[in-house]
Amino acid sequence: MEELIKYGEKFFDELEIVVQRGRDVSVDVELNEISMASTRTNVVTIIRGIKDKRIGIAIIDTADKEEVKKAIESAAKMAKLNNPDEKWHSLPSPGKYREKPKVNEELKEVSPDKLVNFVLEGIKLAKEKDEHITVAGGSAGASWVEVGIYNSQGISVTQEFGHSHIFFEFVGKKEGVVTPGIFEFDAKDNLNLDVEGVVEKGVQKVQWAYKVKEAKNEEVPIIFGPWATSGLLFYTLFPAFSGERLVKKTTPLADKIGESIASEVITMYDDTFHELSIAKAVFDGEGVPTRKTMLIEKGVFKGFVWDNYWAKVYGTESTGHGQRDWRGGGVSIGLNTVVIEEGKKSLEDIIGEIKHGYFVDGVQGAHSSNPDNGNFAVTANPAYLIEDGEIVGSSVFLIAGNIYELLKQATEVSKEQRALPAMYTVITPYIKFENVKIAGKK
Amino acid sequence: MEELIKYGEKFFDELEIVVQRGRDVSVDVELNEISMASTRTNVVTIIRGIKDKRIGIAIIDTADKEEVKKAIESAAKMAKLNNPDEKWHSLPSPGKYREKPKVNEELKEVSPDKLVNFVLEGIKLAKEKDEHITVAGGSAGASWVEVGIYNSQGISVTQEFGHSHIFFEFVGKKEGVVTPGIFEFDAKDNLNLDVEGVVEKGVQKVQWAYKVKEAKNEEVPIIFGPWATSGLLFYTLFPAFSGERLVKKTTPLADKIGESIASEVITMYDDTFHELSIAKAVFDGEGVPTRKTMLIEKGVFKGFVWDNYWAKVYGTESTGHGQRDWRGGGVSIGLNTVVIEEGKKSLEDIIGEIKHGYFVDGVQGAHSSNPDNGNFAVTANPAYLIEDGEIVGSSVFLIAGNIYELLKQATEVSKEQRALPAMYTVITPYIKFENVKIAGKK
Repeated sequence: MEELIKYGEKFFDELEIVVQRGRDVSVDVELNEISMASTRTNVVTIIRGIKDKRIGIAIIDTADKEEVKKAIESAAKMAKLNNPDEKWHSLPSPGKYREKPKVNEELKEVSPDKLVNFVLEGIKLAKEKDEHITVAGGSAGASWVEVGIYNSQGISVTQEFGHSHIFFEFVGKKEGVVTPGIFEFDAKDNLNLDVEGVVEKGVQKVQWAYKVKEAKNEEVPIIFGPWATSGLLFYTLFPAFSGERLVKKTTPLADKIGESIASEVITMYDDTFHELSIAKAVFDGEGVPTRKTMLIEKGVFKGFVWDNYWAKVYGTESTGHGQRDWRGGGVSIGLNTVVIEEGKKSLEDIIGEIKHGYFVDGVQGAHSSNPDNGNFAVTANPAYLIEDGEIVGSSVFLIAGNIYELLKQATEVSKEQRALPAMYTVITPYIKFENVKIAGKK
Repeated sequence: MEELIKYGEKFFDELEIVVQRGRDVSVDVELNEISMASTRTNVVTIIRGIKDKRIGIAIIDTADKEEVKKAIESAAKMAKLNNPDEKWHSLPSPGKYREKPKVNEELKEVSPDKLVNFVLEGIKLAKEKDEHITVAGGSAGASWVEVGIYNSQGISVTQEFGHSHIFFEFVGKKEGVVTPGIFEFDAKDNLNLDVEGVVEKGVQKVQWAYKVKEAKNEEVPIIFGPWATSGLLFYTLFPAFSGERLVKKTTPLADKIGESIASEVITMYDDTFHELSIAKAVFDGEGVPTRKTMLIEKGVFKGFVWDNYWAKVYGTESTGHGQRDWRGGGVSIGLNTVVIEEGKKSLEDIIGEIKHGYFVDGVQGAHSSNPDNGNFAVTANPAYLIEDGEIVGSSVFLIAGNIYELLKQATEVSKEQRALPAMYTVITPYIKFENVKIAGKK
């Protein structure tokens, strides 16, 4: 790699070579049957070079030395055609990296057969628990990825990652009622997937959904499940932590460091090393060390996250939040593994204390939220009606509000935490909010 | 390949091997700059085998003989675990194929440099034509694909395809008005992309969009542009042509063959050999010959389209509309290249005859239409106000209706036709509809 960096220095003031090799095995389910098994491998090499502050990016799907040289030349041609980016400072330099955690070697060579067993077990268990349930869709998968980042400032780091997941969509049909699709999943950085737990939770939710209860307009306590929390925060709150938005003045948190922006029960940080994390990365997408970064401590906003570019524009240091865009080749600010701290009460106890309210499992429409001010309007679906401490049926309703107002209404976080592998991992408990305005929906 | 089919016959009653090799070169634009150049190649092999009516599918990303053998074994294991599909009849047999059109050999080895030139020309032309315009995004790309389909019923066919595209998103900023993103594109099965035409049309639309006109609730003549027509029909009308839906009784066209379902100006057929087609396929995704298939002739519905499976379930013949799902490995019914016949009047003349009405360039929200009955509710955006035969500004409004009612209101189809490379290619003129109810939107 050193040779290729040297070769690139003939064309560029600075350059970076990023190589990703991956293997992905998956098995899909459709209507209680295994619909296919696939094994895919991939290699991507990204060249990012800078000459006179002009940036050129080239992507190829091989790590072959001669092809990488050609890509370097292609990136150099592009850089010449672009205008200089006067804000460009420099590529990152090496930092102090934490020790890489051991990777589960089994994940390197999982066979589809192993995954087929997870899926068959899930289908069998679901049928045993409730004959009216169909596993309408889903998949089991295992991935192994090796990332290497090299640049002319001396960064030369590699890390391997492995994780597996199982995901089911259940549909129940009983006494003329067809439930909506109910989703459950598990994701781990080893192969100990909790298939039984996934099926149990899923079946429980389907059984709640057999009874449909119409929601009305009212103000009630609401428990947000991990999927709903993650979906909502991704589009309303998380973008506001971006240093780029601070520079561009598009975050409502601009002058809020040290101020209370949420209820005291909310503590939130970014930490790839959390035990539930499925990618315990020691460096980010451009080779900067990751670290635990406090975002909200007992309701108080603690600060922004940065990648190399925007940190240098602002005059601060990257917090290790440069996220690589594997399709476009560039880097932008993104969280790694967001953790919302858990509490002491069980979900069951939190539900048990609610006289009249709802448990929201999923939200739809969160992507049209406005991260500039935190306003959102989502459909809670599936949502479950709680009466006298017990779930008695399923509902659909609208919640329109502002994330910063909602965060102040949080009063409980459950002791159970779940890891959601979405765009980035979100590890979150169930969260109870008081006095949430909802609008019934037919 | 014969050897592999033979090998598979040890495990299966019937089997099919599908191989796709592709090369894809693309250059992306962001804010008047080239943001990256990429070159990617891919190989996918799909095994679909049937034993005692039990189906197994395996996918790998190589065509290596030993790996394909392993995939055959993996598909065989899966088939054993699945339940028999009592409706399964047999894989397709060879048919009579039309002569393969010549492929443009240039498309096999396009370099990113060639595409960079298209993009630079587009950016330069846009700036020359209107200094207030930014090329906010876009891409130029060239693809080459080779598909081979082989099965134990004797099918053994291959074909190469090549096409290129250019696509720009323009945004205008002038006198405090920021226009929405305005899209224009060209796609061809050669490299003669009309960059100047794309920029001209795009700039024209941006200039219309500088003047914002509020729409009100009224009934007006509307011209649908190709992008809007394609977007709307994809979710409302095209699914209704599926033979699977005829079998499952979920198409509103079930008993409508020979009946008028649209105005006489509408003639629609499927034909991969249309001169504007960007993939002149002689066989479909499972090796069945394609052919010209009339769908609507002067308003009269002519019949359904079929893949091998559903045709045999229904007792008819595949019309060559088996669409391969390259991610899931299976086949389902899909159109190939839908053509709406052009008329004699120019778009300019059609606009010129409208006293008060709109030209709708794009629709949003069509995906939530109901193909079971043709009901839809979309936002027309961008849409342009026509007054006294001229476009005078841009608007946004809602159109809610039923596609079959709308199709009866068609009175003109333009002589200009455009090819849109979406999920499948749609070749369509501009279409004028009378008395369309619209609802203004703030």
